[in-house]
Amino acid sequence: MDMHELTRELKAHNDSKIIMLVADGLGGLPLTPGGKTELETAHTPNLDELARRGVSGGSIPVKPGITPGSGPGHLGLFGYDPLAYRIGRGALEATGIGFELTARDVAVRGNFCTLDANGNISDRRAGRIESEQSALLAVKLRQVKIPGVEVFVEPVKEHRFVVVFRGEGLGGDVHDTDPQVTGVPPIKPKAMHAASERTAQVAAEFIAQGQKILADQKQANGLTLRGFSAKPALPPYQEVYGLKAAAIAVYPMYKGLARLVGMDIVGKAQTLGEQIDVLIQQWNSYDFFFIHFKYTDSTGEDGNFDAKVKRIEELDSAIPRITALNPTVLVVTGDHSTPSLLKSHSWHPVPTVLVSNVCRTDGCTAFGENEAIRGGLGQFEAKYLMPLALANAGRLGKYGA
Amino acid sequence: MDMHELTRELKAHNDSKIIMLVADGLGGLPLTPGGKTELETAHTPNLDELARRGVSGGSIPVKPGITPGSGPGHLGLFGYDPLAYRIGRGALEATGIGFELTARDVAVRGNFCTLDANGNISDRRAGRIESEQSALLAVKLRQVKIPGVEVFVEPVKEHRFVVVFRGEGLGGDVHDTDPQVTGVPPIKPKAMHAASERTAQVAAEFIAQGQKILADQKQANGLTLRGFSAKPALPPYQEVYGLKAAAIAVYPMYKGLARLVGMDIVGKAQTLGEQIDVLIQQWNSYDFFFIHFKYTDSTGEDGNFDAKVKRIEELDSAIPRITALNPTVLVVTGDHSTPSLLKSHSWHPVPTVLVSNVCRTDGCTAFGENEAIRGGLGQFEAKYLMPLALANAGRLGKYGA
Repeated sequence: MDMHELTRELKAHNDSKIIMLVADGLGGLPLTPGGKTELETAHTPNLDELARRGVSGGSIPVKPGITPGSGPGHLGLFGYDPLAYRIGRGALEATGIGFELTARDVAVRGNFCTLDANGNISDRRAGRIESEQSALLAVKLRQVKIPGVEVFVEPVKEHRFVVVFRGEGLGGDVHDTDPQVTGVPPIKPKAMHAASERTAQVAAEFIAQGQKILADQKQANGLTLRGFSAKPALPPYQEVYGLKAAAIAVYPMYKGLARLVGMDIVGKAQTLGEQIDVLIQQWNSYDFFFIHFKYTDSTGEDGNFDAKVKRIEELDSAIPRITALNPTVLVVTGDHSTPSLLKSHSWHPVPTVLVSNVCRTDGCTAFGENEAIRGGLGQFEAKYLMPLALANAGRLGKYGA
Repeated sequence: MDMHELTRELKAHNDSKIIMLVADGLGGLPLTPGGKTELETAHTPNLDELARRGVSGGSIPVKPGITPGSGPGHLGLFGYDPLAYRIGRGALEATGIGFELTARDVAVRGNFCTLDANGNISDRRAGRIESEQSALLAVKLRQVKIPGVEVFVEPVKEHRFVVVFRGEGLGGDVHDTDPQVTGVPPIKPKAMHAASERTAQVAAEFIAQGQKILADQKQANGLTLRGFSAKPALPPYQEVYGLKAAAIAVYPMYKGLARLVGMDIVGKAQTLGEQIDVLIQQWNSYDFFFIHFKYTDSTGEDGNFDAKVKRIEELDSAIPRITALNPTVLVVTGDHSTPSLLKSHSWHPVPTVLVSNVCRTDGCTAFGENEAIRGGLGQFEAKYLMPLALANAGRLGKYGA
């Protein structure tokens, strides 16, 4: 049974406030076995105080051993089973650049490529064309006109762009046109089933017109399309949890993910301090606040242990302004680990603390990987964090009599 | 979603080596409440060192409270959900005596029984006929000839034997012919559905001819057939994990189980020392090694606490030769607990340690039941051990973007 069948049935309304503070890629590893992680190294008096007052645990983003991308990582935290709900590549790419998908859209990831005189692909990435140059070409592709369909083209980085087809009867299931090898022509768009037939035709027309527009280019005279995907059908927060939810994020990707589950995107914060300002401004307007802090992930991805430690200390210093609001439930967690040692996302459980007046405090006295696994939440799949938060907020009724 | 759908999609290749050392029935119980288990009693400096370097946890073989047999116990460790994949009694029996099943086989467990003058069963186990005597009768049954079907008969212990029917169009689903009571005749073989109709006919013919062959016997003048089963359809290691896998086992059952998931059976070791010799010889030829140590289970089954302690110490002394190979990932675990106190398999979580350079060490300083439950792996279902091992070996890519 989907947990949402339960939360839908049991959800209750009250005036409680829930804050979920997500430090992206929070979990880490020591640089040498037996040493301290980034979080354990950082001086975090405020987070440690939360660990003393709250209940800690290790959040498993998807399943043991599975390393998630940002999409599944956040879906889990938002309470959506990341194995049941999958966000297609095109939809995630559109989300990542802040494109607001509608139910009538099919989003596609586009790549510029180089075609030889015979129409075969000689470079699948158009010689890693520079972003400034490819952005102009993406804008040029907006000239494509397809009857009955709105076409949006947005530049991404280097050889990448996003196309969104908006119209009626456009199914999201079309095979990639990128053959993944050179020396052959791009594949013609092919629908996986009848409901996406029209999308395949629209894509073929886009490619034909696009090819003409690019004909005089040397590097980027062709294009391939990948990851066709409709807007993922995620039931909104209001419906599954009864929560009016706000997202306070800096980067488009996380705003986009929050929007997909029905959160309002509020404020225009650029720093964590500004994000807290927005939180305070919006305090009376929402039941639930998702605050996203990016830099624990980006410093981890850079392999910069010390910088990650500093970013964690920055996060720590923001806590007092949050707790001053006296939220009913405060959760501090991450969507996955990003150990500096690995310079990448990882599968390791994410230290998590939940604070409320009824959370049943454990013996943890600090916020860190080793303390968390001895915590009262044990190890749990991320998707259970929302039901736990709702329960602690008194927003879930009894199951059965 | 099946974990294999994930591992298939995410599997990545590299030169890492994974060793899974399975001490059968490893987990135990103290003889008096509050005392030490067999593992905690044993002097295990090498396993304790692994616990210090690695991450520990308690492996739940199937689900909490469920005691597994050897089949489900090993399927879990191999990463196959033991509730989704079931090995039929006949197939397990055939596997246990080293019979290599093919996709065209139906394996059946046979029992000799005593029939009275009216053809009713007077003894369901032929008076617990001795193995030497019944083995001769099993060999006699090889005289049965059925057109288009190869018939194999292999002795097992006492009144038991195994029949394998090999041919085309033989479904595995036929009801048992053993009525489970005396005073009635054996039941005629009956197919559960059309696809096993032919198997039921073949079985009826086998019984008819067999009955004639046994007619002059006093004790064992009849036979019943149970646990009809085709070779279980387990996707092989290479396909689901991308691993070239070798099994180093002494007993046919464990070789057989490993063969069912596509491992190669290597070496002819009779002792743990010889098993390690084989490991060293085969080190460059495989990605994954399953090493099975039987005696922690058999001493537990005997209720011999001290003997189990000694066997654990034997296991411990083999560790240095294994770690000297510098495997990327070393897992030491068991397929279930076999507490001497219970003289049987049990449901208790099995102490497990996983060692790698990126395992996120916990605070455990010894290998034992009580330490393990405080470990960084927490308690987990055995089926997650393979994804964890793959992740630690860098052999699983990211799920979603």
